[in-house]
Amino acid sequence: MRIIENGTITSVDGFLASGVDANIKGKNTGKKDVAIIYSEDNCVAAGVFTLNKVRSKTIDVCLKNIKNPIKAIVANSGNANACVGEKGYDDALKMTEVVAENLKIESDKVLVSSTGVIGVILPMDRIENGIVKACQNLKKDGGDDAAHAIMTTDLVKKNIAVQFEINGEKIVIGGIAKGSGMIHPNMATMLGYITTNINIEQSIMQNLLKEITDKTFNMISVDRDTSTNDSLIILSNKRAKNRLIDSKEIEGYDLFKNALHYVMEYLAKSIAKDGEGATKLVEAYIKNAKTDEDAKKVGMAIITSPLVKTAIFGKDPNWGRIIAAIGYSEVSVNEGAIDIFIGDVKVCENGIGVLENEVKVKEELQKDEIIITVDLKLGASSAKVWGCDLSYDYVKINADYRS
Amino acid sequence: MRIIENGTITSVDGFLASGVDANIKGKNTGKKDVAIIYSEDNCVAAGVFTLNKVRSKTIDVCLKNIKNPIKAIVANSGNANACVGEKGYDDALKMTEVVAENLKIESDKVLVSSTGVIGVILPMDRIENGIVKACQNLKKDGGDDAAHAIMTTDLVKKNIAVQFEINGEKIVIGGIAKGSGMIHPNMATMLGYITTNINIEQSIMQNLLKEITDKTFNMISVDRDTSTNDSLIILSNKRAKNRLIDSKEIEGYDLFKNALHYVMEYLAKSIAKDGEGATKLVEAYIKNAKTDEDAKKVGMAIITSPLVKTAIFGKDPNWGRIIAAIGYSEVSVNEGAIDIFIGDVKVCENGIGVLENEVKVKEELQKDEIIITVDLKLGASSAKVWGCDLSYDYVKINADYRS
Repeated sequence: MRIIENGTITSVDGFLASGVDANIKGKNTGKKDVAIIYSEDNCVAAGVFTLNKVRSKTIDVCLKNIKNPIKAIVANSGNANACVGEKGYDDALKMTEVVAENLKIESDKVLVSSTGVIGVILPMDRIENGIVKACQNLKKDGGDDAAHAIMTTDLVKKNIAVQFEINGEKIVIGGIAKGSGMIHPNMATMLGYITTNINIEQSIMQNLLKEITDKTFNMISVDRDTSTNDSLIILSNKRAKNRLIDSKEIEGYDLFKNALHYVMEYLAKSIAKDGEGATKLVEAYIKNAKTDEDAKKVGMAIITSPLVKTAIFGKDPNWGRIIAAIGYSEVSVNEGAIDIFIGDVKVCENGIGVLENEVKVKEELQKDEIIITVDLKLGASSAKVWGCDLSYDYVKINADYRS
Repeated sequence: MRIIENGTITSVDGFLASGVDANIKGKNTGKKDVAIIYSEDNCVAAGVFTLNKVRSKTIDVCLKNIKNPIKAIVANSGNANACVGEKGYDDALKMTEVVAENLKIESDKVLVSSTGVIGVILPMDRIENGIVKACQNLKKDGGDDAAHAIMTTDLVKKNIAVQFEINGEKIVIGGIAKGSGMIHPNMATMLGYITTNINIEQSIMQNLLKEITDKTFNMISVDRDTSTNDSLIILSNKRAKNRLIDSKEIEGYDLFKNALHYVMEYLAKSIAKDGEGATKLVEAYIKNAKTDEDAKKVGMAIITSPLVKTAIFGKDPNWGRIIAAIGYSEVSVNEGAIDIFIGDVKVCENGIGVLENEVKVKEELQKDEIIITVDLKLGASSAKVWGCDLSYDYVKINADYRS
């Protein structure tokens, strides 16, 4: 597998994309806010969506269409189209219809996403104008524009593409995502779109997407707030001539799984690293837990603890907060057996502080990526979860979001 | 029932207290850090303690002694005596022994608490000197000094006393507490001590303490971090001549229950209001839920949401974040039936924003105490939970705590 330089969703032949400014985020901001991803061929699609019981009606439109042959995805930022009653469904449907009309396709071949403020009706006139413009702007190298147009408080565009071969046949996977606030498993104000050309059956792709989501996008948390709009969608135009992957035993399944995992983990970590106000990416690697679920719970308790997050922001090697978080994670642990490392430096051995390492660990905490390793010495399961520190800027961004 | 002006734990006849500076928090800070509460008579005691699986060994010493006749409680701030191995138990035990020696009582009649940084061995020489000094300083009006000495990052001392009569017999209840960070149910870096003179059986008092804790101290959250040291202890010297309360049917049980609830709710709300960096007390009142547990879950989701907390800090009427939190609370809700009020102002009706009230709600958000009422319209259960906003100062305090 190789990483494609400046790769994105349009690195896959047959996909075009665009991102335009439709003034959804306010007038003359110069910020792109309507994105379209278009496939020349019909695609097989799979998706995972928010588990929040209060969710945007865009999700209902996606669930209605996702098993159809898909030709396009439309997304806007600046307004979540959530908590606006039945009008939300009508507006989401209308978005697919405007796309269909402009691209001369059927509207049930279009998926739709929205992200932004909750509880405000979509400005449909501006949305419609934006869609018309985005359809006109579709480009073979438009992936980066689309990545830009789905951003809300993100500071960094999130693009990636990789390629590998199955029996000499070139397979490409491209992806874009946005995150920033309301990031927590199941899932987040997280939008992710992945394109590929692999020849694969829908049910296999859906299962793979779900399985890898549990190890990547569902392993990140910025602030524990699960959004109303999270959507992760993969489209394949099946242009590659590999033997159809219709079971796990077919050649190429494992290669594809590994490459897709790489793309999804990259995007998920990019979201955690670019969490609102974040100055550092934090990885918690929990090993030797009794079960995978236990390992995840311990990791999540650590990376979501405001006290751990502020300590990391302050570069304070306060491992006591880490062990306190382990203790309240609701997992049965043996305090007297817990080892904790920050980077390579052991800060706690068998539940007791390793004071002589305090200077070394302060050096570790200067880094941009902090890895906290916890050895529970109880079993053979492990998990990696990702988050970020909690800074003044998180408060600033969210105290001001609407004003 | 009447509230005693400047009331505290020593408002109950027969209790003395003290708080002294033993340099546990550093030299020459002038901050008190060792407290003793002493009862002239043997007391019946009850307690509730942290459910964190990593806990201070002081808790073990309390559990060992709590059913004995109790004469004293010793507490220090500045060091939690947690995550220091078996030495933690020996040191906690030693603290009770030094108290016993100085007050000429048996050491198994002494309870002990610690609060502060985790993972550092107690400076026993300073602790012992502090205990000697605190024993010498015991005073009939020393409750306020004790309230001072248990503070960590608290800004405000938390004292209260109330009195009422059972059949002409005066009953007094006094209380002090500390909180500030790591505040979350089950319980928090929360220490609370309550004194009373009521004639009551131990098992009845223990059950009452647990029952009311679930409605008060377990209904607050500052930052979701459950501490290793939380302890709430009640002592009664039984000086009042009311008929012994050995069942719920005895006269005075309900009066005592209501007064104790008042004291505990006052202390719990004081802790939430004085949460680290807090500028506002936030109450979430959830009504018409299917079950009490559902109501609590919804309330907790709201008051712990960093996005809700930062919006309140920013005085931003962003009710979308409230309904998103309701949605991810894991309670089955009907989005189309949810009403949300901020103060008396309806901001969301049947899941849709009430935009014309936006100006009025901005006025509500100027207040020091914000009440968020959620009507789920699903049943007859309700809950009140308390928290605070999330400000720059929370980050500042916790990024700097140890330095």
